[in-house]
Amino acid sequence: MDKPIHISILGGGNVATHLARKYSNMPEIVLQQIYNRHLDKILEFKSVTDIIDDLSQLKEADIFIIAINDDAIQNFSKQLTKFNNTLIVHTSGSININDLQVLRKGVFYPFQSFSKDKKQLDFINIPILIEAIFKKDEKLLLKLGKTISNKVLVANSEQRMSLHIGGVFVANFVNHLYFQGQELLKSHKLPYNLLKPLIQEVADKAITMSPKKAQTGPAMRNDQQIIKKHLDFLKDKPQQQIYKLLSDSILNTYSNSNEEKS
Amino acid sequence: MDKPIHISILGGGNVATHLARKYSNMPEIVLQQIYNRHLDKILEFKSVTDIIDDLSQLKEADIFIIAINDDAIQNFSKQLTKFNNTLIVHTSGSININDLQVLRKGVFYPFQSFSKDKKQLDFINIPILIEAIFKKDEKLLLKLGKTISNKVLVANSEQRMSLHIGGVFVANFVNHLYFQGQELLKSHKLPYNLLKPLIQEVADKAITMSPKKAQTGPAMRNDQQIIKKHLDFLKDKPQQQIYKLLSDSILNTYSNSNEEKS
Repeated sequence: MDKPIHISILGGGNVATHLARKYSNMPEIVLQQIYNRHLDKILEFKSVTDIIDDLSQLKEADIFIIAINDDAIQNFSKQLTKFNNTLIVHTSGSININDLQVLRKGVFYPFQSFSKDKKQLDFINIPILIEAIFKKDEKLLLKLGKTISNKVLVANSEQRMSLHIGGVFVANFVNHLYFQGQELLKSHKLPYNLLKPLIQEVADKAITMSPKKAQTGPAMRNDQQIIKKHLDFLKDKPQQQIYKLLSDSILNTYSNSNEEKS
Repeated sequence: MDKPIHISILGGGNVATHLARKYSNMPEIVLQQIYNRHLDKILEFKSVTDIIDDLSQLKEADIFIIAINDDAIQNFSKQLTKFNNTLIVHTSGSININDLQVLRKGVFYPFQSFSKDKKQLDFINIPILIEAIFKKDEKLLLKLGKTISNKVLVANSEQRMSLHIGGVFVANFVNHLYFQGQELLKSHKLPYNLLKPLIQEVADKAITMSPKKAQTGPAMRNDQQIIKKHLDFLKDKPQQQIYKLLSDSILNTYSNSNEEKS
């Protein structure tokens, strides 16, 4: 076996916590230190590693993983400029690699929604996008990623951003549509439960076939009569706007593709 | 056992086909006839029942199920005015019960997206909303529904419409967001596969917890910096509009609830 990779995690939020839980018991990895401004957020790791709240106690490692809020990353990295022998990565989808004010910089972006409730996250199917300035660092990150996931790929900052925004579409926005569906039913005294089989089926389809082929509904059929009926029925202004915009977008998607065909 | 219910199905599309497949081999049901303008669309039922393309051959039954396009239902029902001893229902989410120009009218609305590819549909978890003018017909429809689903409920035309539109939100619109996510990745040379674990996770969450609680992302955190970054990054106009509108809607949802709390 290769020599284990020594990492330290800087941060105490969701991503930091899930990575620390995962890496704290792997033979290929030594979780050297965890830093957080407030020790109470990383207390659960007290028995497995050295937890610190003072950056002056931070020791060189193979990799520092900065897992803190996006808008704090750049300034935080300035406190690490003296660590020229450590690869320093952030875990953000939307922050450019060059925002890191250090020599050996990189990105280690696990693409998933991390919520606190979940005890253990199964990383194996979670895509991890990595980026580095130096080839040897890219290799090191590939190795680090592959210890927990079988979907590790090299991607530049722009690709990473597109994946992050793609995630906003298929997770945050999709969930909001579930919410709007629930609200609509609630206002007509119907239980949200009724929507669940459909939610499941649509997600299942998106896994096994292309969303373009899976599309159904009045907008895709260009059924203006039903669309008008639905818009007249909706009393809630935001719901009306969402209905209109998404129907238009679907309509355009399929009218263009019909033109392409003919 | 009670006397079987004699039904005839009028139509040859997805809903008609799936209902006919299901009801053609149930002891509680006699599938008496299937009518369609074009016989070729209902040929698969030739060996199990009487298939006809001429309404003058239609015989009285306990129930006629009209499963044709929404905009054809009203006129079609006019051809059935002489059947005063048969309960006549349509299967549409968006058509009022009173559009049926017959005496004993009703609605039998299975709430699911029916696609032709699927051979057999598992009706057991599919909600069926029923409505009738006469109490005895409501009873009969409940009985018919319960032979195939354990989620049969009585709902008026307005409730049915709200469920139909709710379905447009959580199925048609959600699928379009999957599509937009895929397009965005494609334009940055990333595979759609990367989105699948997240799609699955978000749907799973919507089944086990309330969408309001499950919400995450920049709009919910009111992270204007990231929202601006994402909007600047998006080059596609419809994607930009969708991003903006749905972020605003999420923002309003959570700022209102914060006000409620305080």
